[in-house]
Amino acid sequence: MDDGFARLPDPPYWAVIFSSRRRGRTTPADDDAYRSAAARMEQLAAGRPGYLGIESTRDGEGLGITVSYWDSSEAIRAWRADAEHSLIRDRGRADWYEHYELRVARVERAYGWDDART
Amino acid sequence: MDDGFARLPDPPYWAVIFSSRRRGRTTPADDDAYRSAAARMEQLAAGRPGYLGIESTRDGEGLGITVSYWDSSEAIRAWRADAEHSLIRDRGRADWYEHYELRVARVERAYGWDDART
Repeated sequence: MDDGFARLPDPPYWAVIFSSRRRGRTTPADDDAYRSAAARMEQLAAGRPGYLGIESTRDGEGLGITVSYWDSSEAIRAWRADAEHSLIRDRGRADWYEHYELRVARVERAYGWDDART
Repeated sequence: MDDGFARLPDPPYWAVIFSSRRRGRTTPADDDAYRSAAARMEQLAAGRPGYLGIESTRDGEGLGITVSYWDSSEAIRAWRADAEHSLIRDRGRADWYEHYELRVARVERAYGWDDART
């Protein structure tokens, strides 16, 4: 995902929409640990059956949205139950997040647009 | 949406996941126009039947994800056909975006978590 966009097949497929706010006061060590964990999560997800891709962004105020894409609802349930994923999730609750919302959705239609001039 | 999170009913409901990259070279006037248009889009959407809420974030490199939530697929189709929405979309293609992907999905399950300490 060099440009930040996931390359996906035609729908239907599934999306996990994860909206989160990080805690306000963080230390550089916290930030490093968070970045390492986020990278590890992405690496773990990418190794799971049914993983299709991920898109993720976070603004300067700590509000982030990460959408991971999967080929089935079952793949998402299995990923949710992954042991190392669970450990990192617990760490996220203990140390990094103030609030999050997670929504599991079935993608029915998709459109893309690219500026041919660039 | 003071804290950036949409307040939503229990699923099922619908999501429009809009991932976009803004063009690299922008002027302050561009940025102002973009921010005004984004605010206007949000105001327009909020006035449409079936609108439930929105979450939006963009990082310092111009990668943004906006997810708007709707009570039906039909509400999304109607919003897509809205005349002023179409005008702003055309402007986005002409002036602001390098690339975007739009996915329409039916949310089947949702979970939230809040740090009770904050």
